[in-house]
Amino acid sequence: MSAANLLQVPEEHLFGSDNLPYGLFSTEVESRRRLGVRFGDAVLDLGGAASALGSPHAEVLNGDSLGPLLASGLTVWREVRAELRGWLRPDAGEEIHDRLLPLLRPLAEVELHLPFEVADYVDFYASEHHATNVGRLFRPDGEPLTPNWKHLPIGYHGRAGTVVVSGTDVVRPNGQRKAPTEEVPSFGPSRRLDIEAEVGFVVGTPTRLGQSVPQSQFREHVFGVCLLNDWSARDIQGWEYVPLGPFLGKSFATSVSAWVTPLDALDAARTSPPARTHALLPYLDDSGDEVEQAGLDLRITVTLNGDVVAEPPFAAMYWTAAQQLAHMTVNGASLRTGDLFASGTVSGPEKHQRGCLLELTWGGREPLQLPFGQRAFLENGDEVTLTAWAPAANGRRLGLGEVTGRIVGGA
Amino acid sequence: MSAANLLQVPEEHLFGSDNLPYGLFSTEVESRRRLGVRFGDAVLDLGGAASALGSPHAEVLNGDSLGPLLASGLTVWREVRAELRGWLRPDAGEEIHDRLLPLLRPLAEVELHLPFEVADYVDFYASEHHATNVGRLFRPDGEPLTPNWKHLPIGYHGRAGTVVVSGTDVVRPNGQRKAPTEEVPSFGPSRRLDIEAEVGFVVGTPTRLGQSVPQSQFREHVFGVCLLNDWSARDIQGWEYVPLGPFLGKSFATSVSAWVTPLDALDAARTSPPARTHALLPYLDDSGDEVEQAGLDLRITVTLNGDVVAEPPFAAMYWTAAQQLAHMTVNGASLRTGDLFASGTVSGPEKHQRGCLLELTWGGREPLQLPFGQRAFLENGDEVTLTAWAPAANGRRLGLGEVTGRIVGGA
Repeated sequence: MSAANLLQVPEEHLFGSDNLPYGLFSTEVESRRRLGVRFGDAVLDLGGAASALGSPHAEVLNGDSLGPLLASGLTVWREVRAELRGWLRPDAGEEIHDRLLPLLRPLAEVELHLPFEVADYVDFYASEHHATNVGRLFRPDGEPLTPNWKHLPIGYHGRAGTVVVSGTDVVRPNGQRKAPTEEVPSFGPSRRLDIEAEVGFVVGTPTRLGQSVPQSQFREHVFGVCLLNDWSARDIQGWEYVPLGPFLGKSFATSVSAWVTPLDALDAARTSPPARTHALLPYLDDSGDEVEQAGLDLRITVTLNGDVVAEPPFAAMYWTAAQQLAHMTVNGASLRTGDLFASGTVSGPEKHQRGCLLELTWGGREPLQLPFGQRAFLENGDEVTLTAWAPAANGRRLGLGEVTGRIVGGA
Repeated sequence: MSAANLLQVPEEHLFGSDNLPYGLFSTEVESRRRLGVRFGDAVLDLGGAASALGSPHAEVLNGDSLGPLLASGLTVWREVRAELRGWLRPDAGEEIHDRLLPLLRPLAEVELHLPFEVADYVDFYASEHHATNVGRLFRPDGEPLTPNWKHLPIGYHGRAGTVVVSGTDVVRPNGQRKAPTEEVPSFGPSRRLDIEAEVGFVVGTPTRLGQSVPQSQFREHVFGVCLLNDWSARDIQGWEYVPLGPFLGKSFATSVSAWVTPLDALDAARTSPPARTHALLPYLDDSGDEVEQAGLDLRITVTLNGDVVAEPPFAAMYWTAAQQLAHMTVNGASLRTGDLFASGTVSGPEKHQRGCLLELTWGGREPLQLPFGQRAFLENGDEVTLTAWAPAANGRRLGLGEVTGRIVGGA
């Protein structure tokens, strides 16, 4: 493909000018990490473009992280996006396109990096279908949903330092595991290694300690979304998690997509969350105008070694990201630029809509029959890829990139 | 006190030349944050001293964070400490002391800051006495210790972004709470605000993903200790924590002392942990020579509005910090410089040795009778201070500084 073609992106392309997600890239000859925006099958060097075209926001686009743009706030996010859309329009003019062309790199020639430094990482548990299934599997003698589940979005802090970018190999974790039938725990590589298909939300604008963020201010603080795979060692998790929650069963790796899609690209995907079955306290109530359509219609596909194993619908999530942010800050906990909070496993009501193997194989008892063999949990060499799309204007679709990882044996 | 006296620190001083903890300070006239070491009742400007005396380590001492020193590794930690001890010896010579004197600031004239950027924050649950008491209070119908407790050091990730330095006011958190006797949850300021007296461990040397740190390598990775108060809203915690652990009941604030005491100052405080009642898996086994005396004899005092309410003994902790680090990394989770992991509430076997109000007042049912009134949990305006000392050579004592915080009402 000649360089000139890189600017000719068909309207129906998943990464057209309605999308424009941000990432961090380098190339073999230019090893410095630079901010880029994905357009079609190429990456535009954002700092370079901002300099070449005299953007007033060149300073936040010229660094080696998405951090400065994240920190610059909603007004700047929108100004930068409007500027980019202007530059990339087919009718932007030859002068602009001539300056952009040398700053485009075909995707195949770039290496993508973790786009921002993760400050705190929080993982929620927002799918009623997932929580119900897991409750049945982990606590067969009790009610599947705990009494608090419909009153607050349950969440916990995960390990920020082990969030890795898509494409990073995942080392099978060692740890303690004890089945209920065993007398004492044993140690070794996890035998029940799993995925969790999730959507992550990236915080831009920070808050001070003691401040809370109502649902109506969600857009001022959250910049965009990524895809996220919260790898989980079910045997380690099952033994460790009572009473203080998941720890080593999750902390070995969490993979995120290399592209962060700005919320402004997802307006056509906004949708109403499921009907609420319980009255909510005012800070979580989302029945009002201000916070309507706080759900997002994102369609996720999970593939294992290239075969589709699940299609989880994000629209089915009971708790919205705006409710999660309101809850997370209602105690006065401050936000930092780079905070990442994830939805929890996305599972829908149907069997093929379940976002983890634990559910798909019902605790391993009903292995998946796949062309390459059967799978209860992941084997070494397995590669899992999540992709997703969202509805856009005029019946078109936006791509949310992918998050992929391959399991490798431990040392 | 004249400046000259600041270098004359009596041998029995809690912050003599055997101690030398590190911190970050500024003064009213010099607002730039600088690395300092506490000596007696003063702070020595470390970057200034390193430059004035030609230290080979001036580069890691001259910044506005402890981070570069933390990242420089055990050999440099020891060389810097040896250098400092040399400079501060009474017989170091007039030339050296003349150069140091202008770089000393009386404690009363400095402001102390959070000494390093907290990467990930992990909180353990390592006191058998505390876990047993809390188990009895939170789960009165079950065994107080969960089946895993004696097999692994239970822990969870906390919020790194709300770790604050001693002296920072603590805003009473709002949140959901529901007593077992109530039909539905209510919202408002926590009515059961508590402390947790803990010891924090600060990671210096990082690891790569997939690498684990055996107990025998603890000293290569952990730089030192601080005091830590893990403020806890018991009513919020009690309603939210099943099944994924503490979240908003803890995430509003965690206070740490302004001084980080290097492990090399605590050799005389090393002691054996309590006898193990259960066989441990090899990575946690601490019966061997290499890891013996991995406990620390630190004596903590908790005061509430100036009155002593508890004296928790750190030597009673069942799990050691070396075991915690080995456990935290055994799944391949990487460490970053600035990772902070805390012991969990320090409680001893005696009633006055309990490190939180939940235990001291037995769930609020037996309020403390104090000169200023009775207390089940904290009231607005209450000030809590933790201090600690450790045995040093020749029967002397080292101080571990203090962590203090005052409760203020919410917005």
